Amino acid sequence: MAEVSYSTFDVERLRTFTIDIFLKMGVPLHDAELAADVLIKADLRGIDSHGVARLSGYVRLWQKGRINPTPNIRIVHETPSTATIDGDAGLGLVVAPKAMQIAIEKAEKAGSGWISVKNSNHFGIAAYHAMMAVEKDMIGMSMTNASPLVAPTFSTERMLGTNPICYAFPTGKYAPVVMDMATSAAANGKLEIAQRKDVEVPHGWIQDKGGNDTTDANGLKKGGSLLPLGSDRDHGSHKGFCLGSVVDILSAVLSGASYGPWVPPFVAFLDPLDNQPGQGLGHFLGAMRVDGFRPVDEFKQHMDNWVHRFKTAETAPGYDSVIIPGEPETAAENERITAGIPLISLVVEDLRCLATKMEVTFPKSI
Amino acid sequence: MAEVSYSTFDVERLRTFTIDIFLKMGVPLHDAELAADVLIKADLRGIDSHGVARLSGYVRLWQKGRINPTPNIRIVHETPSTATIDGDAGLGLVVAPKAMQIAIEKAEKAGSGWISVKNSNHFGIAAYHAMMAVEKDMIGMSMTNASPLVAPTFSTERMLGTNPICYAFPTGKYAPVVMDMATSAAANGKLEIAQRKDVEVPHGWIQDKGGNDTTDANGLKKGGSLLPLGSDRDHGSHKGFCLGSVVDILSAVLSGASYGPWVPPFVAFLDPLDNQPGQGLGHFLGAMRVDGFRPVDEFKQHMDNWVHRFKTAETAPGYDSVIIPGEPETAAENERITAGIPLISLVVEDLRCLATKMEVTFPKSI
Repeated sequence: MAEVSYSTFDVERLRTFTIDIFLKMGVPLHDAELAADVLIKADLRGIDSHGVARLSGYVRLWQKGRINPTPNIRIVHETPSTATIDGDAGLGLVVAPKAMQIAIEKAEKAGSGWISVKNSNHFGIAAYHAMMAVEKDMIGMSMTNASPLVAPTFSTERMLGTNPICYAFPTGKYAPVVMDMATSAAANGKLEIAQRKDVEVPHGWIQDKGGNDTTDANGLKKGGSLLPLGSDRDHGSHKGFCLGSVVDILSAVLSGASYGPWVPPFVAFLDPLDNQPGQGLGHFLGAMRVDGFRPVDEFKQHMDNWVHRFKTAETAPGYDSVIIPGEPETAAENERITAGIPLISLVVEDLRCLATKMEVTFPKSI
Repeated sequence: MAEVSYSTFDVERLRTFTIDIFLKMGVPLHDAELAADVLIKADLRGIDSHGVARLSGYVRLWQKGRINPTPNIRIVHETPSTATIDGDAGLGLVVAPKAMQIAIEKAEKAGSGWISVKNSNHFGIAAYHAMMAVEKDMIGMSMTNASPLVAPTFSTERMLGTNPICYAFPTGKYAPVVMDMATSAAANGKLEIAQRKDVEVPHGWIQDKGGNDTTDANGLKKGGSLLPLGSDRDHGSHKGFCLGSVVDILSAVLSGASYGPWVPPFVAFLDPLDNQPGQGLGHFLGAMRVDGFRPVDEFKQHMDNWVHRFKTAETAPGYDSVIIPGEPETAAENERITAGIPLISLVVEDLRCLATKMEVTFPKSI
């Protein structure tokens, strides 16, 4: 196992650095702050694969001309509770929160708001957007399609992204209940961690080029693919494939974005396929007012009761308690907001290099 | 392996029999026809576990006074695009389609309609309700909580039902794309089939009372529990737990139905737990107008392209093609609508017995 070393960074200094990078890309200040907030939130919540570790990736896409720093984000179709938004090739980190804001405004008037987004890019962690609704006593939902890495059941071809789904629910005394999950057996970030540590991955995460199960963490680089949640047919991989497909259709077929194997890759060194059936990546975002269904106080009281009951369910030997969705992320955020954000040396080196290239000051570690 | 024998029944005769049984329960004709349509649709689509095989179960719940044959189904809370419905302890087979009808009417006016239902009972196959929207060029969604059988990750306690999720999408020349999936690794129906055939089940479907993996198809009867989709922590069982929880919260915490371990059991010989936090089972149903997002023709054309592209994805050795969600069910329906519905001898005996008890004529097999 390869050794991995960390340095820790002050949250606000890392935020300032991230804003500075976006500003250098020509992103207006308010949008740069928003995009940085999405990335920093990922690092705070312990989703290290989706935080500042991705900053260089966004810059490379911008250099390739695939990200428009000053998009004209606009509604192209709407009803009182639905809309389609054209992201104008902007940062998904900016397009998605703006779309979610429109979902929330529609929900305020019509009870719920549902926004399908085309012509966007990678939107960071799904939870950021869904959680915007929670602050307004709404239930939030967010999903996005992504670079094709996952093969459908019985297939060897990368047809879907890890297409995450997130639901976020307001609560009373407990932290919000937040489900944020890739629809593949393992998120790509987990593979990257195994690659860095140079360890094998469990059976059922990936298959090789020929469709055979493999534990090689580098299997994807050798032409393999991620497996849908469920891993194989006997264990419901067709359900993971279904979930990934729902995300793809709501995010892209519904909005006019590209779908399936045509989704533009996040890595800038791979060009999008020819004959794109739509524009850019797609997202699907939703907000529902809790009081569109029952009084908010009642709902929160029952959410607390739900959390308490699940938290105190009988456990298998060796486990203290059931983990409530979102609980580890809340714990990470509570710790990191004061202790700072730990970054692995590979990411630190990459960001230092980016800072030099973009003529921005990189902060010292704590 | 125990032998299983089948008899085949004419669809319309089986339908008439089913209607007759509901009429004997005191269900009004139109509701009896609706409930029978939901059950017969399950048998037509090859979801044998959710068709007339369950008829005796509904009758037993009625005999226990847990199903109200003449419910006053009503909206108790609403906004233009949302509502909560009190099912008044009616058959879920009647309550859910009526709630879906309200979702569709809201969608016609507001773009989308979202209905949380309390005080209901088992609603049959989720696909029936979601597919009602497809006929109106809408995207349909349906989910329900259910008798607690599934243990959360790290737990040995049955806290959630198999809580299915269904999405149904309109298409052009292809059959509608319909995902209808339990959020457990295996649906309870699959366990029942293994029990009848007296064969072991795959690892990762169930755990015993102590939380150990078991292949005993009767493991549930011995105090074990179903595992969430993903089966174990390494393979994402926490995601299956998340999905089942989303269903539980949207169906019940949002509507005022009972949730988690309090969900009233489908089997009439088990009484609901004391101190219920809500009323009956809960469902969550939704409809979104496709033309709330983009023109219907464009969407259908791209859905066809989506289906075609996935259908022709490269396959692993030994497989002809990727299975599109809903494809096996459509094939079953096309066959059974003319060939009739095959029922296993155990179900036939049970229905014959029910017919005698309820003084209704049971049809001869074809």
